[in-house]
Amino acid sequence: MEHAIRTLAEKARAAALGTATLDTTAKDAALLRLAMLLEEQSAIILKENTKDLEAGREGGLTQALLDRLRFDEDRIRAMAEGVRQVVALPDPVGEVIEESTRPNGLLLRKRRVPIGVIGIIYESRPNVTVDCAALCLKSGNACILRGGKEAFHTNTVLAGIIGQALQETGIAKEAVQLVPTTDREALNILLKLDDCIHCIIPRGGEGLIRFVAENSRIPVIKHYKGVCNIYVDKDADLAIAEKIVENAKCQRPGVCNAAENLFVHEEIAADFLPRIASRLQANNVELRLDHATAGYINGNGLTFTHASEADFHEEYLDLILSIKTVDSIDEAIDAVNQYGSGHSDAIITTNEAAAEKFLSAVDTSTAYWNASTRFTDGFEFGLGAEIGISTDRLHARGPMGLRELCTYKFIVYGTGQIK
Amino acid sequence: MEHAIRTLAEKARAAALGTATLDTTAKDAALLRLAMLLEEQSAIILKENTKDLEAGREGGLTQALLDRLRFDEDRIRAMAEGVRQVVALPDPVGEVIEESTRPNGLLLRKRRVPIGVIGIIYESRPNVTVDCAALCLKSGNACILRGGKEAFHTNTVLAGIIGQALQETGIAKEAVQLVPTTDREALNILLKLDDCIHCIIPRGGEGLIRFVAENSRIPVIKHYKGVCNIYVDKDADLAIAEKIVENAKCQRPGVCNAAENLFVHEEIAADFLPRIASRLQANNVELRLDHATAGYINGNGLTFTHASEADFHEEYLDLILSIKTVDSIDEAIDAVNQYGSGHSDAIITTNEAAAEKFLSAVDTSTAYWNASTRFTDGFEFGLGAEIGISTDRLHARGPMGLRELCTYKFIVYGTGQIK
Repeated sequence: MEHAIRTLAEKARAAALGTATLDTTAKDAALLRLAMLLEEQSAIILKENTKDLEAGREGGLTQALLDRLRFDEDRIRAMAEGVRQVVALPDPVGEVIEESTRPNGLLLRKRRVPIGVIGIIYESRPNVTVDCAALCLKSGNACILRGGKEAFHTNTVLAGIIGQALQETGIAKEAVQLVPTTDREALNILLKLDDCIHCIIPRGGEGLIRFVAENSRIPVIKHYKGVCNIYVDKDADLAIAEKIVENAKCQRPGVCNAAENLFVHEEIAADFLPRIASRLQANNVELRLDHATAGYINGNGLTFTHASEADFHEEYLDLILSIKTVDSIDEAIDAVNQYGSGHSDAIITTNEAAAEKFLSAVDTSTAYWNASTRFTDGFEFGLGAEIGISTDRLHARGPMGLRELCTYKFIVYGTGQIK
Repeated sequence: MEHAIRTLAEKARAAALGTATLDTTAKDAALLRLAMLLEEQSAIILKENTKDLEAGREGGLTQALLDRLRFDEDRIRAMAEGVRQVVALPDPVGEVIEESTRPNGLLLRKRRVPIGVIGIIYESRPNVTVDCAALCLKSGNACILRGGKEAFHTNTVLAGIIGQALQETGIAKEAVQLVPTTDREALNILLKLDDCIHCIIPRGGEGLIRFVAENSRIPVIKHYKGVCNIYVDKDADLAIAEKIVENAKCQRPGVCNAAENLFVHEEIAADFLPRIASRLQANNVELRLDHATAGYINGNGLTFTHASEADFHEEYLDLILSIKTVDSIDEAIDAVNQYGSGHSDAIITTNEAAAEKFLSAVDTSTAYWNASTRFTDGFEFGLGAEIGISTDRLHARGPMGLRELCTYKFIVYGTGQIK
């Protein structure tokens, strides 16, 4: 096993040295061929997908997981369309990020280059196989894909189609490889090969991500969870505050950029809290309130429970919101930094000084002033597509696109300079 | 022990939330006070340094290690001067890296912010204590310093002086903390505290760096070693090639950006190899040659040994050079990517197409065209000062200064936008 996994990684490393120097035309040709092949071979994809679905039903997968796993003609077309959208994105490789000339005449350029070999560790959604392969290839990287066992047949057929597209367009098929087993032992071996693999991106539940982070010798870019916070300041426009809190909580509660906690300044609490509580309750949101907040709501005929300390750390991913009344913007900032996961945090205020203070002091990937946290997303940020969202601080923070799949190198042009 | 280390890290985390929002004036005031205190308290520093030197002599430290450990008035003045140079550098915090306005009116700014808490793990040179503390503070980070046991008394007095400078200028002294023990158990605990510490930078020998990389759950930025390569192309200006190879090997052989391998195109081998070999031999360089190279040198009265495969992977840090004759630029590129450590690699040629091919294809932090590898250094690159050099690909590659001690966050300015 160890030998097989190492061989696969060494082949990826060799392939990466080739993909790093491909020009945009060559990469785009392979991606366009891939999009076409996905549509042409949809019958085979659906057949293999059916095997996974049958095994999943027998194995007792929930309806939600089966739905994530399921392909149909529309989903295959959407996946091919996603590949074509990656073709339309600008190629990040070769961009000059900084340039300077030193007193001794050396010209320094910091040029964007691919990272090398990217390992993607993911769970049940097989479209990740194609999405990630396309983003890695466009950014000049090789990738190793390790999907979940639920999607094994589907992933295998998709990887075969990707390999065919690469070969037909003159690119080494080892530039995209699926790990041919889903057991944890193989994953553990993979995560130690830091001489061949340069970056690991896990996508899935917090359990998988923690396993990867704790067992990897290769740098991991990740977010465990999104505990996003909204602070409604004493100088907030309450109509805007209501609209944003409702949107951030209710529009799609199961995603990482949905709000989980609301902090309200006590000066506007008596006015704002009953309004927002009834609006949320109309959206079937369960309210978990600290003691002070409960005092403002009580007697308005609204139902709620008392929030525990643990509730404010919780990523509900559901129609539940924890609310706390704070006596100052400082208490709000402390609460965001204590309970939040550094994903997305918003202040609602008309006071610019308060806004700048909050935006500067909250330790987070994305800080909002008068907008919903739901915008933290590669597409919304204009990256075109997203390989993931990072709540880490090194390399990339927030939504990650093609540029974040690159590193840089210094190119130094001399005329014989010696030291 | 575990409790004490965790408490220290939690205090650093809390202090970092404060240093992140300090303005430049406050940080510079603390650094200027530190520079002054170092000079004022030089007698105490020298007294504590003497304890380390005596213990080192008794413990059998080599003369070279004792020299690294030793302070005198001049070295203390130089250290204080180094702190004043950090004051003179521009503050990276708050710089807007990118800005865009989305179709829905959201204004996005990617703003440079401190990473948070930096752990520096280092060995015998106590000036690292002050250098790193100054760089971390200027970039708004808190730091945890874990020095070597040989320098424990010196590091302790320096950390005390740093704490005094912070307190006297109104900054929490927990922004710079020395781990009060040098045992490995404490280090191992520290390396697991990824909820409080955000980045580890090890500085020292390869053994220490490997220990840190293999035991850390926190992202590590590092370079294990510098196996730097020079390729002399068939179209090289041989006078320039001679001068650069001599400089890169001989000017200071014990540093990471010195050359260890030379690759020479066979078309110019008969002309160039005897010339460079005798020039190197005049500098007392030991030559280790592959079979073909030996053929060109033999009979010129020069001494050499035959290079093994392992020699080309070796970081000699000494007056030794491995030389190989190659039949093409492609073989040279493959050799660089196979033997090099991704630190610094040069091509010597007058042929622009060959240069661009090499610069693009070598997988390295810094690629040179007609210049010595010895320039890979924060000061030479205009960074002012250097926290280290990275041969990693994530976050930073090559020389790292103040900007590389920062991450970014997205600041989003809205007018009530919801999704």
